[in-house]
Amino acid sequence: MKKIDKSKKFLIVGLGLLGGCYAMALKKKGYYVSAITKEQDDVDYAVSQGIIDCGSTDVDKELVENADIIVFALYPHTFIEWIKTYGDLIKEGTILTDVTGVKGCIVYEIQSLLKPGVEFIAAHPMAGREVSGVRNSDDSIFKDANYIVVPTDKNTFGAIEICKELGEILGFARVSVLNPEKHDEMIAFLSQLTHCIAVSLMCANDNPGLVFYTGDSFRDLTRIANINDDMWSELFLSNREALLKEMEKYRNTFNRLYECVKNNDREEMRSMMRISTERRAEFNKRYQDL
Amino acid sequence: MKKIDKSKKFLIVGLGLLGGCYAMALKKKGYYVSAITKEQDDVDYAVSQGIIDCGSTDVDKELVENADIIVFALYPHTFIEWIKTYGDLIKEGTILTDVTGVKGCIVYEIQSLLKPGVEFIAAHPMAGREVSGVRNSDDSIFKDANYIVVPTDKNTFGAIEICKELGEILGFARVSVLNPEKHDEMIAFLSQLTHCIAVSLMCANDNPGLVFYTGDSFRDLTRIANINDDMWSELFLSNREALLKEMEKYRNTFNRLYECVKNNDREEMRSMMRISTERRAEFNKRYQDL
Repeated sequence: MKKIDKSKKFLIVGLGLLGGCYAMALKKKGYYVSAITKEQDDVDYAVSQGIIDCGSTDVDKELVENADIIVFALYPHTFIEWIKTYGDLIKEGTILTDVTGVKGCIVYEIQSLLKPGVEFIAAHPMAGREVSGVRNSDDSIFKDANYIVVPTDKNTFGAIEICKELGEILGFARVSVLNPEKHDEMIAFLSQLTHCIAVSLMCANDNPGLVFYTGDSFRDLTRIANINDDMWSELFLSNREALLKEMEKYRNTFNRLYECVKNNDREEMRSMMRISTERRAEFNKRYQDL
Repeated sequence: MKKIDKSKKFLIVGLGLLGGCYAMALKKKGYYVSAITKEQDDVDYAVSQGIIDCGSTDVDKELVENADIIVFALYPHTFIEWIKTYGDLIKEGTILTDVTGVKGCIVYEIQSLLKPGVEFIAAHPMAGREVSGVRNSDDSIFKDANYIVVPTDKNTFGAIEICKELGEILGFARVSVLNPEKHDEMIAFLSQLTHCIAVSLMCANDNPGLVFYTGDSFRDLTRIANINDDMWSELFLSNREALLKEMEKYRNTFNRLYECVKNNDREEMRSMMRISTERRAEFNKRYQDL
């Protein structure tokens, strides 16, 4: 039996790129969606485009009380500040969820700040674009993407089920469940480290002429080098220990390959390339993304 | 005035993925194309599909003498061996070109081995696929790609013009000219370093479960981790000094970012991210690939 019937009302807090994508997808499915965000301009745009039903730049008591499910699409520290300031406005029985890219540093604190009867179940939609703002929202980015529910021991089975159902309603390809520590380790490797690599690669060479001769590989590796420095620096530092660990592992492997080239050690080099090829082939097999 | 009129006959030596793409593109434009390659099976397949007019697994004297333009699509060391063994069969006035991904280590040697009246003008088609063999050939990979003519001081103006024209006939988006040293420096950064990064990233983590939670960034960065270890290890070592230099520059930049994370230096981190974003935006502007 579905838990999120059409009577459920959503409130999006933070109508940026991802908040806008959530609103779009939910409206298309027939849900009532309101929003609270910083700029009146974004509210007006979203209402005029039918992305939300209504919105406000103030933390509107009525909007908050009216919501059955509130989605927070804010930076980690802003999310915590919001709950500290306005948490008491949230009515009992409301489910809170979020889109934050790091979990350990916020989930436990948010849960401890909430009054009894209000439950926060964290989620991470693994989708994004290299542009920001509700004007760039496009819910089709969820289509081939992963959605991860990130419960703690405090979460109820019911809330976890609701959060999984939300991932399906939004149109994600795969919905899975991880605890905050596993999530942060995984995200440090798959997402944060890859952004570190793209940034480093772009900063390593200041010859603008080189790009005239590029093939696909450089283009692919630096697509994500176009990065929101305000958001990502906060995400990196919010997940500092896990990220440092993954950076070290990767750096050691890169150094191993460097030594192969330096010492003309073709056999060891080929053995690394074969491991790489096997793992990537396994990856393709699982995802059929060839 | 065009130099490669329809009477010109092509010979492809080495009917793998790229050799097959050349043959396909040339046949579609109405040229006569023959091939010499290792496996009879590949000859039969290519003839049956209309990719070549005829072919042989022997170094057929008649095919070699008949050709006006010979394209070598071999590994670097095999290319040199071929010229040493069969170079005398090539008739005066023939233009030789190639598809090899490294230049300094072969161009001068090949040119010094050829008899007078036979000219080798090097070229690098910056296109490929993660699969190999003539059965995977697809000349549409040239459509958005770069083609680089790599002359030495010994090359004639006429041969350089022919080689540029060949790039246009094959359907490349951009044809440019670089000397072998600049080419190798550029390729070390844009192509070889990116493959080193993809291989290292794939070798750095042996948890197969992680890929279940990936977003686009990891997929993009490891697409090229599926790598032909025989070919790429030879290419890396053939361009060893230039590659080591680029690996060192990149490693230093990555280490700088690591120190930012370690020392909670958000300002320096943001400054690197802004440089990265600006360069990538410039790149997008030039290529309109957003």
